[in-house]
Amino acid sequence: MQNKKDNFSEWYTEITKEAQLCDLRYNLKGFIVFMPWAVRTMKIMYGAYERELESRGHEPVLFPALIPEGNLSKESAHVEGFVPSVFWVTHAGREKLEERMAMRPTSETAMYPLYSLWIQGLSDLPLKLYQSCQVWRYETKATRPFIRSREFHWIEAHDVFATEAEAMAQVREDIEMTEKVVHSVFGIPVLFFKRPEWDKFPGAVATYAADTLMPDMRVLQLPSTHFLGQNFAKVFDIKYLDSEGKSKFAWQTCYGPAISRIYAALISVHGDDKGLIFPFDLAPVQIAIIPIYAKGNEEKVNKYCSELASRLSSDGFRVKFDSGPQTPGYKFHEWEMKGVPIRIDVGGKELESGELTIARRDTGKKEKIKSNEKSLANHLRSLAPEILSNLKHLAEKSFSSHMHHAKSMQELESSLEKGGFVRVPFCSVSKEGESCAAKIKEKFGGDVRGTIYPEEPVPHGEKCVVCGELASCFVYVARQY
Amino acid sequence: MQNKKDNFSEWYTEITKEAQLCDLRYNLKGFIVFMPWAVRTMKIMYGAYERELESRGHEPVLFPALIPEGNLSKESAHVEGFVPSVFWVTHAGREKLEERMAMRPTSETAMYPLYSLWIQGLSDLPLKLYQSCQVWRYETKATRPFIRSREFHWIEAHDVFATEAEAMAQVREDIEMTEKVVHSVFGIPVLFFKRPEWDKFPGAVATYAADTLMPDMRVLQLPSTHFLGQNFAKVFDIKYLDSEGKSKFAWQTCYGPAISRIYAALISVHGDDKGLIFPFDLAPVQIAIIPIYAKGNEEKVNKYCSELASRLSSDGFRVKFDSGPQTPGYKFHEWEMKGVPIRIDVGGKELESGELTIARRDTGKKEKIKSNEKSLANHLRSLAPEILSNLKHLAEKSFSSHMHHAKSMQELESSLEKGGFVRVPFCSVSKEGESCAAKIKEKFGGDVRGTIYPEEPVPHGEKCVVCGELASCFVYVARQY
Repeated sequence: MQNKKDNFSEWYTEITKEAQLCDLRYNLKGFIVFMPWAVRTMKIMYGAYERELESRGHEPVLFPALIPEGNLSKESAHVEGFVPSVFWVTHAGREKLEERMAMRPTSETAMYPLYSLWIQGLSDLPLKLYQSCQVWRYETKATRPFIRSREFHWIEAHDVFATEAEAMAQVREDIEMTEKVVHSVFGIPVLFFKRPEWDKFPGAVATYAADTLMPDMRVLQLPSTHFLGQNFAKVFDIKYLDSEGKSKFAWQTCYGPAISRIYAALISVHGDDKGLIFPFDLAPVQIAIIPIYAKGNEEKVNKYCSELASRLSSDGFRVKFDSGPQTPGYKFHEWEMKGVPIRIDVGGKELESGELTIARRDTGKKEKIKSNEKSLANHLRSLAPEILSNLKHLAEKSFSSHMHHAKSMQELESSLEKGGFVRVPFCSVSKEGESCAAKIKEKFGGDVRGTIYPEEPVPHGEKCVVCGELASCFVYVARQY
Repeated sequence: MQNKKDNFSEWYTEITKEAQLCDLRYNLKGFIVFMPWAVRTMKIMYGAYERELESRGHEPVLFPALIPEGNLSKESAHVEGFVPSVFWVTHAGREKLEERMAMRPTSETAMYPLYSLWIQGLSDLPLKLYQSCQVWRYETKATRPFIRSREFHWIEAHDVFATEAEAMAQVREDIEMTEKVVHSVFGIPVLFFKRPEWDKFPGAVATYAADTLMPDMRVLQLPSTHFLGQNFAKVFDIKYLDSEGKSKFAWQTCYGPAISRIYAALISVHGDDKGLIFPFDLAPVQIAIIPIYAKGNEEKVNKYCSELASRLSSDGFRVKFDSGPQTPGYKFHEWEMKGVPIRIDVGGKELESGELTIARRDTGKKEKIKSNEKSLANHLRSLAPEILSNLKHLAEKSFSSHMHHAKSMQELESSLEKGGFVRVPFCSVSKEGESCAAKIKEKFGGDVRGTIYPEEPVPHGEKCVVCGELASCFVYVARQY
């Protein structure tokens, strides 16, 4: 394998191929085939997110993949933002359609006409629905598997409230959920930013987005949540009667964790120079059992391994007994590269002693443990939080060591070279600041990610690193994917 | 509610609306919004099917939703069968595409070009993959929610083998899986038929499909499995080197359980004149707790119900404590209509006696049971197989009582009037028999579903009910959806 830190791009290309996470040979540009080793983990990630959403009052729904052009065109900022990237269906069978249909790039304009019918009074609120689905966008930027494709797999939650305060509370809840799932369960550190005016979700009042750092210390945007205000409510006529019988426009939010992209972060953040490393709960296979034969004991070893595998399976673990014809060395390497958290080697010694050798993928450490049922299962179970905590700790350390400060363009430039975030005083994240941001982009290839959330104190007397005007805020600059 | 047996069509329309299973007001013809009460059960159904497929060696994969026209056009019978129903993407953003792309109507032509790359030798076989996804077909027949839409939710499994015998064994395994999941777990009786030549899956050598009977005794096709022979292997160049180093075309099968359609059968077969009835394991809510207040005890009853609900939830049940402002009568009716298997009423009497009244939706029977933790959870758990077995028994009784035999057109006509299947001697299920089948369709609106599987003995000296030629087989005729 390539060195992950120094040659991340090559490492990423190699691991997606070697571990068979995807196949890039599908004959449509920007579309990939998601292979079993990736799909298995993505399914677990979907499950974790869906449980979290449902525990907070969201219900699952499934809207059509196609959206009539008329719907999509209703909100002007939204249509402007999305039309350049829409795949259009114009014909069905041998007929030309009267109206073009968009393959959903996101579902606001599919869902909200129905929301208008469903919401009449206060008793219909809040309305909190989500769908797990694919979206399609005709990306013109270079595509990378899982990171940016023309088809991606996500969840979108669309919520409606009677008041602005409740909608803003939902934005905070979405941020909390991201912290809980992406950081606490997947082990990926993120920072939330309120995006500048010029980088909002098309149609939103405000966008809050999680950024993580990839191993080359460029940022990758993970889930974002959008405060839509009443923008869409006014266009799609989403109104309710308040307690005094007055008709009022509702307040909305939407939230979009892209599972396929979070998967890219998962493998990149936790992997090492030997390949993938999965947190125990996310691994397609959690325990690989490798037989070590000596002359004449093949049958005995195989029987022992089979029994061990089925015992551990019925204990609820995802187990693979690798009885293939390859050498133990080949198998060690293979399961290491594929990121299986625990390896158990079984040979003549183990059969005699009743003790098993357990090797951890994340630390490389080995330990011996009695193979009797209860203690083994309990011990393996206890390793899950230990492994996660170790991976999370490593990721956090790297993340927090790439947080720089700069007060001048020169400092900004040299800090950006080190990778990660650079905090700088900045004139404004409203429309007026856009030209300063453009200069940073042009000179150093750095992107203004926005102001940090939760908000930090504003600068006192400091000057914008670009224009020298009085700074109104600190922004974080980073090179992005 | 309408009478299910006598006015099934009206019953179906009413229940899909009253129980909020879907919304038909999405502004694209033939597309529906799947609502939470339906999506929750469909997710459980997906899970059951996926576990079954994986336990038999299938792995999950995700292919693009778009297929280049060139791929789709390679197998001539396939393209002829599907092109009339394809939604075509011709533009992306503001550009016209060089080649049109089909929204997948099914994924053979997306997957098999990659299969050709993945399969080289015997060690790559068998290859057994499935994907859970949506497909889109521009149906010209009348659409009905869940039964026939222009977008449906299904699983498709695509398997490749070295030999014809293994492929045929897979067809039998697919049939077994259908029996196990659709019949044993969902409680829906089915019969498998080998479809006549003129009713095969486009591109297949043979199609085996499950038919169930809807309450109006018309048949609905459920999962079908297709023996593809080497038809696609030859077109997509799927070859392997055999043990002697000779290059050989592989043998293929594909299998397609349409979850959204099986859901239609589930609610129709088990429902009654009061609404839905779900098997315990498939219910979005398994237990509804209804508080019955008497003056002054609201707080006590609510506290008791909340505790009961959280206790049962942590026991793994899906529970709803209905603390809404409606009357108990309204709530009884509501949860009955929505098909919740178990209702527990809690009032002052229950608080005092420590005994709970449990009402079963499927039988309407009530019983009293001690509310202490262990016995209650165990008892509720024991009801799951009882409820399923009762529902299955009722469904089987109705199914088997609609199996008729006829030896003449007159008998066929009168039997078809009774509804269900009519077994008749028939000239041939090869191409030559198509005109006889067309006559049955034209005269009585009956469809020849094919010969039954497993095969039954051939007729001796009997005559085809249509043309009077010597019959080569018995076929089953029914009016279809």
